Amino acid sequence: MGDARKKPNPASSSSGETLIEGRRPLRCIVKLGGAAITRKNELESINEESLGSVCAQLREAMASSSIGSASPPPRGISMDWSRRSGDRILPVSVDDFGEHSAVDFDNNFVIVHGAGSFGHFQASTSGVHKGGLHLPLVKAGFVATRISVTSLNLEIVRALAREGIPSVGMSPFACGWSTQKRNVASADAAQIIHSLSAGFVPVLHGDAVLDHLQGCTILSGDVIIRHLAQLLMPKYVVFLTDVLGVYDRPPSDPNAILLREIVVDEDGSWSVLKPTLEQLKKEVEITVAAHDTTGGMETKISEAAVIARLGIDVYITKAGTEHSLIALKGQVDNDTEDWLGTVIRSSKHAPLSA
Amino acid sequence: MGDARKKPNPASSSSGETLIEGRRPLRCIVKLGGAAITRKNELESINEESLGSVCAQLREAMASSSIGSASPPPRGISMDWSRRSGDRILPVSVDDFGEHSAVDFDNNFVIVHGAGSFGHFQASTSGVHKGGLHLPLVKAGFVATRISVTSLNLEIVRALAREGIPSVGMSPFACGWSTQKRNVASADAAQIIHSLSAGFVPVLHGDAVLDHLQGCTILSGDVIIRHLAQLLMPKYVVFLTDVLGVYDRPPSDPNAILLREIVVDEDGSWSVLKPTLEQLKKEVEITVAAHDTTGGMETKISEAAVIARLGIDVYITKAGTEHSLIALKGQVDNDTEDWLGTVIRSSKHAPLSA
Repeated sequence: MGDARKKPNPASSSSGETLIEGRRPLRCIVKLGGAAITRKNELESINEESLGSVCAQLREAMASSSIGSASPPPRGISMDWSRRSGDRILPVSVDDFGEHSAVDFDNNFVIVHGAGSFGHFQASTSGVHKGGLHLPLVKAGFVATRISVTSLNLEIVRALAREGIPSVGMSPFACGWSTQKRNVASADAAQIIHSLSAGFVPVLHGDAVLDHLQGCTILSGDVIIRHLAQLLMPKYVVFLTDVLGVYDRPPSDPNAILLREIVVDEDGSWSVLKPTLEQLKKEVEITVAAHDTTGGMETKISEAAVIARLGIDVYITKAGTEHSLIALKGQVDNDTEDWLGTVIRSSKHAPLSA
Repeated sequence: MGDARKKPNPASSSSGETLIEGRRPLRCIVKLGGAAITRKNELESINEESLGSVCAQLREAMASSSIGSASPPPRGISMDWSRRSGDRILPVSVDDFGEHSAVDFDNNFVIVHGAGSFGHFQASTSGVHKGGLHLPLVKAGFVATRISVTSLNLEIVRALAREGIPSVGMSPFACGWSTQKRNVASADAAQIIHSLSAGFVPVLHGDAVLDHLQGCTILSGDVIIRHLAQLLMPKYVVFLTDVLGVYDRPPSDPNAILLREIVVDEDGSWSVLKPTLEQLKKEVEITVAAHDTTGGMETKISEAAVIARLGIDVYITKAGTEHSLIALKGQVDNDTEDWLGTVIRSSKHAPLSA
């Protein structure tokens, strides 16, 4: 602990290079999809049940070593001591926290969440993603969007803390993330690394940010994850969403087929390995949800492909299922048919499939 | 607008030097004291009335040019479009925000708020200020403290936005502020400057931060203000609190006398200029509120003295009064007896008092 802090070696980057030496390797970056944790069609409404189950699974995954334990660990002692947390206003008797009472778990995770029904309305009404901060409507929309997404961030940090996960909110705008024509132009990961070294779990989110060319834009959680994966080289990346993974057509279509494995070539092109083209019997047609201002599945696959090319496995699956727990533990077995989700990996690193 | 962003010249500092060139001069740094905006003895309770009046006065001060206008400007169009803001869920018709509908006001302010009844309980129960992140209680307390103070920050950003002030929350921990034995060790003001250049009002707060020697501590709003004043050289600094200023003894004492003017010598020592020692007829005895973990009036005077030595006038007065409005406008007249509050200024820059 504290190693990275003693050597001030900020992982500052002007667009995606470098990586910090001498720190604990990052285990996992998790995306909590907006669709999984909010009610997408109800303004600023959290899907409490889904969020609660995601947080419980995260805790379980952090407590499981790579060997994996059969029974879930005891629930942690809440780190949310706020009045709104209900009956246990200050749940703390100092005795609750002996020197050794905390399960010593591997919480070397970074969490990034989407906006769902937070922020999207404000951003799309005002056109924040198109820039133009000199326009009063855009400036107001920028402020309104940040209020909305940071209030979601606070609730997610609280939900994680209630599970005993030492979560710390880190808002990308405030941390100095900025873009140039919607590509990440600067992102200071030093504080993320310091937080990890101190044993905390940074929680970032899609945000309204300053853009060097157009004034401002929306930086999506998916782009943040791609950038952090390049900087921090986690062992694996998990996208939790409201469907089982990537389908060949809109998942609402009864004939939609789950794409189980996608491989990415060194040139960045990708193809579906499972099911085989014969099984699919047709061209793959990827869904793009029209209401999603930051791009739907196609964006997700492109972003995931960039990550996979680095040799990092990407798992996309449904939040709050047995499959998401396996993904969060990093225990997806390529040869089993039981795990339902989409694996995206590099063709170079992928085991040869028959 | 945007000048500072085009020349990447971050006001990064390892302990209080430098300053950015070529940017609009900062007009004012305002401290919203925890005692002024929260109910100090009621856990996590905002003093809505006081906060509302502070925000309205801030808007009025921003709208007044240095000449000063007699009638308050029309209330701005709310920039808080969140569900909790009540009846006007999306108050925006695009027509509300014409190109020129916004009053062109000088909002080149930075706002820093204290914690009041947010954070203090969590911090003092767990001893976050004393450090020791390896202890589960301290780590949990760190998380709980940040949840509490960031939830207050969100509410203050919302209250400002409802007045039409384009406020953006910037949490010091997330922005990478850290300390060494409770003194500021690193503070990246670059994003604060970028935000100001883009026309936003950064809103910071006292926070739990990492400390290079003891693991963690509490960084108070007063220390943040001192540091920012050194970096950004505002024209004046205003501390809004729940009493009229600095008294010679606890303000609850009926014999307490308001210290109207304090001058700071070049060596940092300070003395009371008004009232005169004869008027006071006794030694000055400064209040330190016992429940205030980050120091009371004595800390405030020391921090203010450091600012005043730079030639920056510091005004301490009661939030939500005619006196606070005058202070926020920077129109405190040294020669009038009408203004009630404490002025702290450099002896070098102070006008000669009779």
